[in-house]
Amino acid sequence: MTYCVGLKIDSGLVFMSDTRTNAGVDNISTFRKMRCWETPDDRVLVLLSAGNLATTQAVASLLDERTKAPDERTSSMLETPSMYQAARLVGDTVKEVIRQSAPVGQSADAFGASFILGGQIRGMEPRLFLIYPEGNFIEAGEDTPFFQIGETKYGKPILVRAHDAAMSFEETVKLLLVSFDSTLKSNLSVGLPLDVLFYGRDSFKVGYEKRIDADDAYFKTISDGWSTALKTAFKSLPDFTR
Amino acid sequence: MTYCVGLKIDSGLVFMSDTRTNAGVDNISTFRKMRCWETPDDRVLVLLSAGNLATTQAVASLLDERTKAPDERTSSMLETPSMYQAARLVGDTVKEVIRQSAPVGQSADAFGASFILGGQIRGMEPRLFLIYPEGNFIEAGEDTPFFQIGETKYGKPILVRAHDAAMSFEETVKLLLVSFDSTLKSNLSVGLPLDVLFYGRDSFKVGYEKRIDADDAYFKTISDGWSTALKTAFKSLPDFTR
Repeated sequence: MTYCVGLKIDSGLVFMSDTRTNAGVDNISTFRKMRCWETPDDRVLVLLSAGNLATTQAVASLLDERTKAPDERTSSMLETPSMYQAARLVGDTVKEVIRQSAPVGQSADAFGASFILGGQIRGMEPRLFLIYPEGNFIEAGEDTPFFQIGETKYGKPILVRAHDAAMSFEETVKLLLVSFDSTLKSNLSVGLPLDVLFYGRDSFKVGYEKRIDADDAYFKTISDGWSTALKTAFKSLPDFTR
Repeated sequence: MTYCVGLKIDSGLVFMSDTRTNAGVDNISTFRKMRCWETPDDRVLVLLSAGNLATTQAVASLLDERTKAPDERTSSMLETPSMYQAARLVGDTVKEVIRQSAPVGQSADAFGASFILGGQIRGMEPRLFLIYPEGNFIEAGEDTPFFQIGETKYGKPILVRAHDAAMSFEETVKLLLVSFDSTLKSNLSVGLPLDVLFYGRDSFKVGYEKRIDADDAYFKTISDGWSTALKTAFKSLPDFTR
């Protein structure tokens, strides 16, 4: 499985993804699920992926035109005129890959993959999309400023309750780590290290990027601290009376 | 969907279940998912059910021998010599019902149902079982003192983190309400009112039983209070630093 979140805040976009892939519980590997395309002063596009690894890698390879000789490649993600067009391109590519993977008459479910695409192109607003395995997509708005893909349920309640568009990047990373920690604790197929990326509105360059591994001191502080803080919060509520 | 939890504490067993059933989102109803069999001074058995409503009702009807004329019925749940035998009986009954429901050659998945069975029979310890749609079952132990069925993921993190066998019944109801509130907020197909039941170890009678509806003052206190307490807990952790 996988857990990825893309979140819109007033100051920009924050992305976090885990790196565990698995085929059964006895065949796990580490793969980066966050891809970034950047042309300084023009655009930053970030793509998070969940689902069949062959599908997500094929989609990224096609977007990067790896069917061509290295010299002739220019990623099509660097040439789309708008974020909307970039989302359509990802959607069309995933449809194409799944169609080619699924044998005639068989279900395409096993080849499914979903994506979160976020970024900004000069002259336009930052935008955030969720792209389904069917190739269609939705955009985040003010009411729902984040998207999750993969194992979304364990980490959702805290996102819903604590998210606030006015949050700083630093607070947002804290929120995402709490959400990821709940998921890591509950689903073995979501695993460290985590990739985090911040894109600052109107900056047209990657603002911050880090890989957070199991030894990360801040992650440990949050993971341990959240257990304690939750227990304290729980104790602060009045007990039931018969 | 459904959300039910059975939990073992030092002082006994606590059960909570929602009451919403749905076929699609436009056909929802309220049905009790908690059934109790009691012979004072001899036994209390509580059964929580999730899954296909026709299956769970058929299982309960068969356990109560409703195939017989009313005068000739004695629920077989009142006659099993041990909790283990009661769990086997529920397992065998669910297998029988699913076998009869699924047309030849078709998948039985749509008819699936799972159960939590807990209780105590005089001369033996209180026990808690999870019964799968396949009819086999597992028993709760010290390491995993609770079982969930239905929509289990949203409400699991808080159970894992805050559960403690030494908790009182009153604290346990608080914990379960927090877990149910997270689930209610995230999945429309889990709905109020909630049924709660307490069985006190070696009491051989139902200790406490209540239906908690949307107007319940304590439920409101927990639901509102938990949002605030979570935010405070979240703010108490240090922000990320770049």
